[in-house]
Amino acid sequence: MSTPSFSQWMTHIQERMESALDRALPVPAITPTRLHEAMRYAVLGGGKRVRPLLVHAAGDISGATPERLDRVGCALEMIHAYSLVHDDMPCMDDDTLRRGKPTVHVQFDDATALLVGDALQTLAFQHLAEAPVSDDPQRQLGMLRQLAIASGSRGMAGGQAIDLASVGLQLNLSELEFMHIHKTGALIRAAVGLGVQCGRNLNDDEMTSLDHVGKVIGLLFQIVDDILDAEADTATLGKTAGKDAANDKPTYVSLLGVTRARALAEEMCQDALDRLAAFGEPARRLSELTRFIVHRQF
Amino acid sequence: MSTPSFSQWMTHIQERMESALDRALPVPAITPTRLHEAMRYAVLGGGKRVRPLLVHAAGDISGATPERLDRVGCALEMIHAYSLVHDDMPCMDDDTLRRGKPTVHVQFDDATALLVGDALQTLAFQHLAEAPVSDDPQRQLGMLRQLAIASGSRGMAGGQAIDLASVGLQLNLSELEFMHIHKTGALIRAAVGLGVQCGRNLNDDEMTSLDHVGKVIGLLFQIVDDILDAEADTATLGKTAGKDAANDKPTYVSLLGVTRARALAEEMCQDALDRLAAFGEPARRLSELTRFIVHRQF
Repeated sequence: MSTPSFSQWMTHIQERMESALDRALPVPAITPTRLHEAMRYAVLGGGKRVRPLLVHAAGDISGATPERLDRVGCALEMIHAYSLVHDDMPCMDDDTLRRGKPTVHVQFDDATALLVGDALQTLAFQHLAEAPVSDDPQRQLGMLRQLAIASGSRGMAGGQAIDLASVGLQLNLSELEFMHIHKTGALIRAAVGLGVQCGRNLNDDEMTSLDHVGKVIGLLFQIVDDILDAEADTATLGKTAGKDAANDKPTYVSLLGVTRARALAEEMCQDALDRLAAFGEPARRLSELTRFIVHRQF
Repeated sequence: MSTPSFSQWMTHIQERMESALDRALPVPAITPTRLHEAMRYAVLGGGKRVRPLLVHAAGDISGATPERLDRVGCALEMIHAYSLVHDDMPCMDDDTLRRGKPTVHVQFDDATALLVGDALQTLAFQHLAEAPVSDDPQRQLGMLRQLAIASGSRGMAGGQAIDLASVGLQLNLSELEFMHIHKTGALIRAAVGLGVQCGRNLNDDEMTSLDHVGKVIGLLFQIVDDILDAEADTATLGKTAGKDAANDKPTYVSLLGVTRARALAEEMCQDALDRLAAFGEPARRLSELTRFIVHRQF
């Protein structure tokens, strides 16, 4: 049997994850039904599942079982979904559409959106604590701690706070990088690190190298987001202004221009691929996924 | 040296906890400074620390070390503080004062309050994962899971959702109890259960009995809250209407009247004290604390 193509692999993991998330979320029949319905609305039936894809691709490197990777992927996707629900609320970005559907506070109400985010975050930690994702419970505690640090005031939530504070300000490249390393980078980096830890122990050098790869992928993801946002802006000729520019948010494109931002992305991509080459065939999916993240058109 | 009085013990634990929370929270010097400042504002310098007191009192029964109980107490107090910050927000209860100070969204802004709650919840799980609270890491994972279940959509956050949905409705006693068992009861019950688990293993019967005590204390706490709210109402002769009545929220007092609510509280208190008597002297503080919760005047 030939190895599935990257595209087949990606579809397979996305389907696995949809099913794993469906099982991990409380069914609406359980009280409080409206909250549970809204939690499912926020998580299921949409999303590229980038973080779970990274977990599965990274887990290949250490030979982790798919079941453990599903569990870690669910926890990361719940954290990601909670952050989207809260970020979309009127007191934050005030967005009305997400993944082509009304945002949670529009479809339900603000109070429900607040509780949905809160309860999804809790469920992420519950899910990661309630079945083995490592043979060593001590390591699993470390993984929980790592997810918390990546999500909290010195990770994702902290990046969001810096982002809020930076609207209308001139950031330099180093400040912009600092913000993104926290806001989107921390969780993406954690996806790689946690995926790897579901399998056999790697040595310190290997872990350090893969942690660097995770950090690079996190930044890459943001640079490409900025490029896509800016290009959508140009393509529609100002009819719908790019959201970042409209919000006067600093981006890689506003700082470097599209051409240099694209060159930076290619350079960082090559750095990640060079490091992954040292891991041979088991790093195939993570290499493919890194290339995919850089060259995606959405 | 004579045993300290209950009042001395309580002051001692409250001071320990203030110091433990101060150390557990990020210093504002760390970026993002405004978020860290707001997190400290939300947690420090106020609050009766009921949940940490329960943790310490329950930990006495299994001979747990104060350091472990501090850690579990911090995690519970962070969850409690996060829930208060979010509950006070305009889209929920829209409260402007808490513990005699402006609420977080008033003192800072709505977006910061949202992130403060989010990051405090994360920090609770981080704190509980990052140092031993049990000799057995597997048990510690179980404790993390227990905290998550008590906090999430089938615990505290779920109770909040039921509460929101019940404004203006006629609940019966069983429905009211269901709401409070989730909204305030779950975390109080977890405080007792988690405190006990920091020490030596108790047998199943002992754990079941103490879990029942935790559940009773959670309900007691709410019944007494309702009575105090109603009595404040009467005392001020309608000048400041009781908040529950003003919000048309069902309470034990609206359902039973003050006299029968008070009698129910006394009966439940005796049930808890009878069970605690079986544990002898190590249960002294938890018995005293239970009585204190029933007879408090604030």
